Formats: sequence, C-alpha cells, structure tokens
Amino acid sequence: MINLQPIGHVTGGRAEAFDDNWGAERAVIRLAGFGPEALAGLEDFSHLEVVFYFHQVRPEKIERGARRPRNNPEWPLTGVFAQRGKNRPNQLGVSRCQLIAVDGTDIHVAGLDAIDGTPVLDIKPYLAEFAPQGGPVVQPDWATELMREYY
Amino acid sequence: MINLQPIGHVTGGRAEAFDDNWGAERAVIRLAGFGPEALAGLEDFSHLEVVFYFHQVRPEKIERGARRPRNNPEWPLTGVFAQRGKNRPNQLGVSRCQLIAVDGTDIHVAGLDAIDGTPVLDIKPYLAEFAPQGGPVVQPDWATELMREYY
Repeated sequence: MINLQPIGHVTGGRAEAFDDNWGAERAVIRLAGFGPEALAGLEDFSHLEVVFYFHQVRPEKIERGARRPRNNPEWPLTGVFAQRGKNRPNQLGVSRCQLIAVDGTDIHVAGLDAIDGTPVLDIKPYLAEFAPQGGPVVQPDWATELMREYY
Repeated sequence: MINLQPIGHVTGGRAEAFDDNWGAERAVIRLAGFGPEALAGLEDFSHLEVVFYFHQVRPEKIERGARRPRNNPEWPLTGVFAQRGKNRPNQLGVSRCQLIAVDGTDIHVAGLDAIDGTPVLDIKPYLAEFAPQGGPVVQPDWATELMREYY
C-alpha cells in the first residue's frame, strides 16, 4: 500500500461532476501545509499538470474490467485502463490546465476538469518536451467523439 | 490519508535512475490483479499516460520548499511544484510513452522514464484533446535547457 497526503484542494469551479464543457471553468488550487516558496517560479509556465483524487467515487462503482465508455451502447466494450473515466482503480485523475496566476499558496487555473473540494496530490509544470514522442497521436473514433464537447 | 494499491509494475528498462536519454528505452508494464479485459481496446491508442511512484526516494530527500533544478547553480531557486524532479511530496511521476503492443496483461512501451521495479498506480490512454488548451506552451529557459537530452 502507498499512503499519500493531499498537498491541497480545488476550491471553486463546479460543485458537481458532469461530463462536458470544462474549458471555461475557473478554479483555485489552494495548497495546505506548504509555503509560497514551494511555488517559486511557477508563473514562468503557461500550463500545469495536476494529479488529483476522484474523491466522490463510491467503491462499488469502481470498474476493474471492461465497460462501454459513458455506458454508450454504440461504443465498444473497453478496458478500464483504455479509458479515462473516474470509476477506476486508485481513482486518480491527471489533467492539464492553464495557469492564470499564483497568489501566495493559491494557484488560479482555467480548464481544470476537477470539482470543488477535490484533493490534489501533485502539481507539475507542463513542459513542451513532455508531449507525446515518436509519432502522431492515434486514437479510436469513439474517443474523438466522446471528447467533442469536453473542453 | 489516501491509500493506493499499485496496479502493476515496470519490468525491464533501466535498473537505476539517471537523468537523460529516456526516449530509446523499452520496458513492460505488467499488471497485477487484473485480467486482460482491463486492457481491452488499449491497442487502438498510440500513446499512454502512466502514473507511477518514485519508490526509491528516501524520505529525508523530499523537498517541500524550493531548490535549484538538478542542483545546477546556474538555474534559479525553483519551488518543488514548479519542477518535475522525483524528490517531491507524494513521489508521483506522470509521463507519456508510446504503446508498442499489448500481450495479455503485459503492456510493451517505449520512452517511459521509469526504472525497473517501479510501482504503477494508473494507466490512461492519451487523447489528442487532452493536450494543453487555450494558448501555446510557455516555459522558462532553464526548463528547455534541462530537457535538451532528456528524451
């Protein structure tokens, strides 16, 4: 077992999870247990990568095999690790978002797909070199369709 | 506290961490406690996003404030959440890699910057729509310099 302590929480933004139109959301990531020095230089980056915990998932909802994404009967039976839905082992979310401003230990962000109260486990700067390497990004049609209104 | 159970481990690749030239590495992510159905459809994606645990970090090495990246005196004092080094709270790594093949519950990957034996906490497909939104990626010069030989 690996024990993690949230480094802070999402404050503001959506009160409840729904699937689409995250791009317009604004929220604050508020650190807990760290000083402003933990964010020194963060404002030199345009984008962050945030690891967070889907804290509202009920244990009995967690999928360990395959299901149809969003339970859409037109999409194929897909393994839990071949989709990004929240009902997953370890309940981890990973997203990019825009950094708007840093104010003490508050980080103002845009387009973070995490709801108010979400525990945050890590924040990393996004670097261009960490984009997918070695060829173009290929994905199945269902994934492109699912993402149409997401951001 | 949040308790996580590794979903598998990295097998092969580097035996020890060093900083650069990860792009040529090949390794296997071997699931533990899941059947092949948890990976159904994964091969339709070219790239994965992997969340892993920097298991060899000694607790006393974890930075909670600011340090110079790679202790390079020419680079600025930078908050731990404004860099991606492994000596960080919660010891989480997040990386993209190329998917080469899926064989039962083994996932063959290229360019994963995690060493042999690394506990894996989550695997997600990488979707083009999850690339940084809302403007170009901006980063400071030290970060670009640090990444020059990384992949």
